[in-house]
Amino acid sequence: MTQALAPIHEVEIVEVGPRDGFQPIGPFIPTEQKLGFVDGAAKAGLRRIEIGSFVSAKAVPQMADTPEVLQRIGTAGGLLPQVLVPTYKRGVEALAAGAPMIAFVLSVSEAHNRNNVRQSPGESADAYAELMQATPAHIPVRLNLATSLDCPFDGRVAPDEVLALLERLVPMRPDAEVCLCDTTGRAAPAEVRQLFAQARSAFPDVRHWALHAHDTYGRGVANVFAAFEEGVRVFDAAMGGLGGCPFAPGATGNVATEDLVSMFDRMGVSTGVTLDALVPLANRAAALPGAQAGGQVRHVVRQMETTIPG
Amino acid sequence: MTQALAPIHEVEIVEVGPRDGFQPIGPFIPTEQKLGFVDGAAKAGLRRIEIGSFVSAKAVPQMADTPEVLQRIGTAGGLLPQVLVPTYKRGVEALAAGAPMIAFVLSVSEAHNRNNVRQSPGESADAYAELMQATPAHIPVRLNLATSLDCPFDGRVAPDEVLALLERLVPMRPDAEVCLCDTTGRAAPAEVRQLFAQARSAFPDVRHWALHAHDTYGRGVANVFAAFEEGVRVFDAAMGGLGGCPFAPGATGNVATEDLVSMFDRMGVSTGVTLDALVPLANRAAALPGAQAGGQVRHVVRQMETTIPG
Repeated sequence: MTQALAPIHEVEIVEVGPRDGFQPIGPFIPTEQKLGFVDGAAKAGLRRIEIGSFVSAKAVPQMADTPEVLQRIGTAGGLLPQVLVPTYKRGVEALAAGAPMIAFVLSVSEAHNRNNVRQSPGESADAYAELMQATPAHIPVRLNLATSLDCPFDGRVAPDEVLALLERLVPMRPDAEVCLCDTTGRAAPAEVRQLFAQARSAFPDVRHWALHAHDTYGRGVANVFAAFEEGVRVFDAAMGGLGGCPFAPGATGNVATEDLVSMFDRMGVSTGVTLDALVPLANRAAALPGAQAGGQVRHVVRQMETTIPG
Repeated sequence: MTQALAPIHEVEIVEVGPRDGFQPIGPFIPTEQKLGFVDGAAKAGLRRIEIGSFVSAKAVPQMADTPEVLQRIGTAGGLLPQVLVPTYKRGVEALAAGAPMIAFVLSVSEAHNRNNVRQSPGESADAYAELMQATPAHIPVRLNLATSLDCPFDGRVAPDEVLALLERLVPMRPDAEVCLCDTTGRAAPAEVRQLFAQARSAFPDVRHWALHAHDTYGRGVANVFAAFEEGVRVFDAAMGGLGGCPFAPGATGNVATEDLVSMFDRMGVSTGVTLDALVPLANRAAALPGAQAGGQVRHVVRQMETTIPG
């Protein structure tokens, strides 16, 4: 049901902190605390929140309580909790657990997809087709294409590879939101611009395009800006820039929600998010034991606003 | 002499760490150490380096040894040391001290200019005119317009204010490089794009445009990208993202040199800078006692390159 995905504001920021941000954190974050972050994000105006994933609890212990988070979070106040699923089996589990929205992830790059789910991208595409057969029409769907620009194993990914995969995937659920992911954060904004220009031109009937940007190399915000200029209106981000990079201590992860909100505020583009409510939450997220945090705005916004006149 | 400013590479990154980066650092950095950073930057391929400023040693004690740094650094290997001057008197001092290039700074915003030099922008424009009379034609000149987009006291600055000031200033030294500065880091890339589009169209004879971006709000790299797309080819940056913000502990300062080099490398745009040589230097700069550092690439580049195949 595409209607549920229609942005209320000019730009929709999808808060992925509770999934992509929490996932690499070692110490288990108690379920109550997770619920508190989701609630705080909703109160700050974030309507869509990726609250967790259905994956192996052995491989990703931090996500073991996703079913409970899902059950307790509800959809009051228009909240649209999104859960990530990497296989047909996990997708069916998520639906059975009452997920109001699912995001199916597969990687464009063969090496990355095999590393994640031990399948080729083609096999994952078949799984997506099967899952779409089992997914009711009223459940909104997102399709996440990991490594759409760069792969940690194979380096650069050509736009043609992305387009070829989309040729297969888009017809399986034409009203799905398509999210192209810069998994490594290595992509430069010129590539992001080119990829979305090509993709939007090749698939004019896809109504919702999204970008999942990482700030590992400091160009996450630039990539968001380039995609915005290409007409993309949905952006993943994590409060406090959580996410980290398992290969690099000190490196940041997802682009910070508050950095995007601040930029769009300055540009007069509405996101529905209140920075003053988000920043304390982002600071709390960044202070979680074991977290690798990033983002700039949370360091400065309060001091600037109170110290500097005008 | 415009010739000296003609970029050798597709993009010229001006290393301002030794000036804008060191300036807010409390503990005095010994002159030997400053020389080491300039030397390291030059070895990494940075041709133009803002090595200091001629200002009141009482107001900015960190810059007290600029004359000595200038004297000892030389111009071997094509190095073009640039010094910042805010008044006629300081400009003449810099020339007398043998500065091979001067950067004259004034603010577009009245409040900021008065705060810095106790003069109106118009009075500073007169000072620039006077200084240009005293500056030999073979000395390349840069004109830095601080608060070209945003002022810490007055907020947004309209492009018309910048253009009106340039109307007066450009004829005083038509071959000067014109650097528009986002002093607060608050500008969004859409504004940067618009400002340079208007400025380049209004002053087609200005050959060299530059952007001085801060990353305080996490959009320094995005602003550089937007300016690059508008044809700007000269960018200020500081190794390790030094610079800080006196109003906000933990906030970052100038956009990090290594973040720009990494982005341009990825885009296939040559800067002449070798990232592998720059990153250890940036890490050393970030570790200076009292430094507020930023930038992402230095956290990740070594680990990624050694950990991940391909």
